Amino acid sequence: MGLKRSWLDSANSPTTPFPLNNLPYGVFSVGDGDLRCGVAIGDRVVDATGLEAAGALRADPLADVLDAPYWNDFMELGQAAWARYRSALSALLAEGADDATQDLIITHSVKLSEATLHMPFRVSEFTDFYASRDHATNVGTMFRGPENALPPNWLHMPIGYNGRASSVVVSGTDIRRPWGQLKGPDEDRSRFAPSERFDFELELGAIVGTSSNGPLSVAEAYDNIFGYVLLNDWSARDIQAWEYQPLGPFQAKATATTISPWIVTGAALEPFRRDAPAREVALLGHLKDAGPMLYDIALEVTLAPQGKAATTITRTNAKTLYYSAAQQLAHHTSSGCPMRAGDLLGSGTISGPNRENRGALLELSWGGTDPIALETGEKRNFLEDCDTVTLSGAAQGDGYQIGFGDCTGTVQPALNKPFG
Amino acid sequence: MGLKRSWLDSANSPTTPFPLNNLPYGVFSVGDGDLRCGVAIGDRVVDATGLEAAGALRADPLADVLDAPYWNDFMELGQAAWARYRSALSALLAEGADDATQDLIITHSVKLSEATLHMPFRVSEFTDFYASRDHATNVGTMFRGPENALPPNWLHMPIGYNGRASSVVVSGTDIRRPWGQLKGPDEDRSRFAPSERFDFELELGAIVGTSSNGPLSVAEAYDNIFGYVLLNDWSARDIQAWEYQPLGPFQAKATATTISPWIVTGAALEPFRRDAPAREVALLGHLKDAGPMLYDIALEVTLAPQGKAATTITRTNAKTLYYSAAQQLAHHTSSGCPMRAGDLLGSGTISGPNRENRGALLELSWGGTDPIALETGEKRNFLEDCDTVTLSGAAQGDGYQIGFGDCTGTVQPALNKPFG
Repeated sequence: MGLKRSWLDSANSPTTPFPLNNLPYGVFSVGDGDLRCGVAIGDRVVDATGLEAAGALRADPLADVLDAPYWNDFMELGQAAWARYRSALSALLAEGADDATQDLIITHSVKLSEATLHMPFRVSEFTDFYASRDHATNVGTMFRGPENALPPNWLHMPIGYNGRASSVVVSGTDIRRPWGQLKGPDEDRSRFAPSERFDFELELGAIVGTSSNGPLSVAEAYDNIFGYVLLNDWSARDIQAWEYQPLGPFQAKATATTISPWIVTGAALEPFRRDAPAREVALLGHLKDAGPMLYDIALEVTLAPQGKAATTITRTNAKTLYYSAAQQLAHHTSSGCPMRAGDLLGSGTISGPNRENRGALLELSWGGTDPIALETGEKRNFLEDCDTVTLSGAAQGDGYQIGFGDCTGTVQPALNKPFG
Repeated sequence: MGLKRSWLDSANSPTTPFPLNNLPYGVFSVGDGDLRCGVAIGDRVVDATGLEAAGALRADPLADVLDAPYWNDFMELGQAAWARYRSALSALLAEGADDATQDLIITHSVKLSEATLHMPFRVSEFTDFYASRDHATNVGTMFRGPENALPPNWLHMPIGYNGRASSVVVSGTDIRRPWGQLKGPDEDRSRFAPSERFDFELELGAIVGTSSNGPLSVAEAYDNIFGYVLLNDWSARDIQAWEYQPLGPFQAKATATTISPWIVTGAALEPFRRDAPAREVALLGHLKDAGPMLYDIALEVTLAPQGKAATTITRTNAKTLYYSAAQQLAHHTSSGCPMRAGDLLGSGTISGPNRENRGALLELSWGGTDPIALETGEKRNFLEDCDTVTLSGAAQGDGYQIGFGDCTGTVQPALNKPFG
């Protein structure tokens, strides 16, 4: 299936991230105006809140679910409503729409360049997984040696931990280098200091759209996922090393997690579904593969020192993950854990087989022992103040791309004193 | 300071959990009626939503913060408003109130025995700590031997992990035994089955009332805590053993966490503040003790097999904790993690020095090797289907008690098949 053509020329470019095939959901404002739900198409944002208020395009005949600064109420309507809305919106934007329709859309849309983008949904809870085999192998090799690289449970289930929803921010938000309790292996005692090993993590985030109250099968879980964002789980490796035994990552991951501004729906990614890799250990019934549920999405990360050019420091693909978001969600519900619209599930760092495919500086610099070279001539083991990290991603179709918008953030210096 | 006398006789009993000194906040309904904010006093619940609507007692002159099925909006008003409200409500209920006042309260209150109690607040996020030294020592001894019982970081900071807010339920809610992925040390591979080592955990929960967006000192953190509940963090020990390395507890703790129905405010617990124990390792500045911030609250747990009498299986005290909720909250914010009204912080299992003070069956039965005897003649290593576990707690004043209401739940048999 190729490009779906729109009457809006900018949506037909082979390089726009937002062709008619995409229709990602975000939240925008213009000037001092209210936050509104919007849909990206070419170089414009369609004002979905405005179309609903005008009665021109309603997701729910009875409730103004888009009269809100987030897409959560829309998600709650469920999969059939998502499909109806996408189909109706697509019809308004497709080649052949009449003049009145085109006028309506132009009236209820603005240039993307004039819009400020905000968090596209209210994060109910945030869970982060560890689903890239290359990433888990690299980290495990560094910490436990190559023989014990993968934790014993890793091939049996998609292990994860609960993160902190309150710390999730939208692309463009500055990230303050955290303070934390640190203790190096050679230090006698701990100290409270700014993190010296601050890092990014390249991930894909899945957004639960349909609430549930008991165990889900993998197929059910797939249907409950509303869409996807790029996700950078900023990580303080030195805080993590001292705190994580035995209860897992906590403050190391609580400073901030940045997501891209547009929710790319599962519907837009359907053509890019890919099978999971061969299973070294057969998965138990509740986690068994139930069709292709990974996505072929090319991912890359750039790092730009302050005022200098960006260097692409990694290139990888979401199809290399070992577990799909559907398998992660099924596992998440296995104990009966209730899930809610707006729950965000991070894939875990996505690394590929080679150095240039690694999704975090921890791996790229092999624990800070082998710095990477930037095109500016500088080197990096971990992030320095005022470094800007930008994640981008695209699924490449036949003559079109599905993009997410950049997921970017700049590291600000730590507070002089955290308080007092 | 002794009993504050009320014109409501039932509030003056030395054994009521709800004297005028307490005034805990909950949410109640009567019959098919709406959920309303209520305050317990003696054998009655004062309808705080009704008093607000009548203009008789308002927390905020401009907004109906109690016109909601939770106390979160009230919490957001901040400490000064909490104190004003408590003082004004106390005046309406104190001995000496005139007849019109007494009529007003009787009109806007119901018998506790007629009220159904609900979740008193909307849990924003849930964090569980590990702050009892006896508990951490017992568990560590079982898993790593007595020499390595306490994790290396334990004496340096209040370690914790993020739990699952969606799984927090109010006392009285049935608890379904979870399925999960299990693998015993002698098993070749994992299997998906109902938990065979399902347990309770006796904890105190602290509720954040004031939002924050950066590191808090211990003193600031203390002031931001709105109140406390009893908390049972139901735990599947067999799921936990297989999943927890290296990312910490996840599905083992996601089935349910039960809290008591009444939020006992920090104000009510002021007379019961106690100093922390001597510090074996001096705490770093950001965690240093800043006054007595533990509470002298006697705690106990009963276990009742279906249709049989309950046996008290543990007795301990919240003053034995090593870290206060204020220290936990300060640590929680140290990396810059934003906190919100309604965040719930579990203390971790509270155990005392002797067997009869242990706050979980894991410890009481020493990992299932030494079952406890119930008064019914039965024995328990872990919970059996239809067992009812009830936590209770009271701070004992001079002629009065501060109680929480019971925190109870009954284990239901696992689903026959979790799905499909």
